[in-house]
Amino acid sequence: MPDGTDYTIRPIARIRSDLPTKFGIPRQAGLVEELEAAVVFEPEFRSADALRGLEGFSHIWLIWQFSGALREGWSPTVRPPRLGGNARMGVFATRSPFRPNALGLSCVRLLAVEKDAALGPVLRVAGADLMDGTPVYDIKPYLPYADCRPEATGGFAPDAGRTLRVEYAEGAAEKIPADKRAALTGLLARDPRPPYQNDPARVYVLPFAGREVRFRVEGETVIVLSAAP
Amino acid sequence: MPDGTDYTIRPIARIRSDLPTKFGIPRQAGLVEELEAAVVFEPEFRSADALRGLEGFSHIWLIWQFSGALREGWSPTVRPPRLGGNARMGVFATRSPFRPNALGLSCVRLLAVEKDAALGPVLRVAGADLMDGTPVYDIKPYLPYADCRPEATGGFAPDAGRTLRVEYAEGAAEKIPADKRAALTGLLARDPRPPYQNDPARVYVLPFAGREVRFRVEGETVIVLSAAP
Repeated sequence: MPDGTDYTIRPIARIRSDLPTKFGIPRQAGLVEELEAAVVFEPEFRSADALRGLEGFSHIWLIWQFSGALREGWSPTVRPPRLGGNARMGVFATRSPFRPNALGLSCVRLLAVEKDAALGPVLRVAGADLMDGTPVYDIKPYLPYADCRPEATGGFAPDAGRTLRVEYAEGAAEKIPADKRAALTGLLARDPRPPYQNDPARVYVLPFAGREVRFRVEGETVIVLSAAP
Repeated sequence: MPDGTDYTIRPIARIRSDLPTKFGIPRQAGLVEELEAAVVFEPEFRSADALRGLEGFSHIWLIWQFSGALREGWSPTVRPPRLGGNARMGVFATRSPFRPNALGLSCVRLLAVEKDAALGPVLRVAGADLMDGTPVYDIKPYLPYADCRPEATGGFAPDAGRTLRVEYAEGAAEKIPADKRAALTGLLARDPRPPYQNDPARVYVLPFAGREVRFRVEGETVIVLSAAP
């Protein structure tokens, strides 16, 4: 029986992804399908047995910590970026990181369960909205009959929202490894700027895959200026 | 940045439901739509502001603790009831309670956000697979565009599984409050017996809504024998 006390949870794994900071992380899982990540288990949880049968599921849930937002604490209301940063909503009506328990929930596509000589079993996933280093507390199979609710209606967030066009200045695309380009384009198309900001001259710097990607946004178009290592 | 340490989470709410023990709890949320429950916030989280906008969502996620299974610890493999209790699967390929971090995840239908004079805001939900007293750590809106994945395939658990027929012995149904009868029928139809057990003479006692519901199972039929207060 519950005893009213707090509960201490321990990371079973960490995320390895191309996004070392919060900037640019898609606002939900699945929005940028091209964005891949790896789930690397902590040494005490490197057990192939614990994953037996997982490869039969196309999608999995990750429960993780908003480790990049911990210091800021929580507030009963938040301003969802989707509402332009103006309207306040209850924190429990949003997926905001600033929650009493800073737990995130992501449905990602399971690409492969791999075996790494040094790291043990590693999960490769697509559609990740996860910062590099994010602690993961649980992995569960996505059960379509219980988790997929086509009848559900989505309040103030009924769809994935708008996307921007993405263009690369001459020579910029080639600075991004070919297998990372679609992911970068996908996440820029989701407009990573903070709400309120709409200055076409402003240059943003996005750390991505070991590069510093510089871009600006003119109207509905993102222009990638450079991508220096 | 994550620092490798454990994370202590605090219940924001507790479940009030008609199931005081683990016995009879549906194996996933949504399987018994008639089964209602209430989410009652802990005193420090009784904030109507924190729920603003939630009423616009038809479904919500609850992240909670398998408080009835904590003592048993975890094991890398488990025997899912759906496989008859024979085959072993990795714990992360199942929704078993016996996990390294005993966190549960349920998508329930949001019936109403009510205001109770004594308890503050209370969420009424349907399709609950939750024991009375369960600590809840987080509540999030179900976002159809991110959480509903019609293309997902379900490994060894592709559907909700079989149901049993439910019959009531003479006079037994009347002992259950009329507004609880459909929920009881629904959860019995899901066959709450432990795997392996198939003795038509065996009488099971299910605590439900303040009653002791006695039943046995003959082939594919559940027979409710009595329901004493």
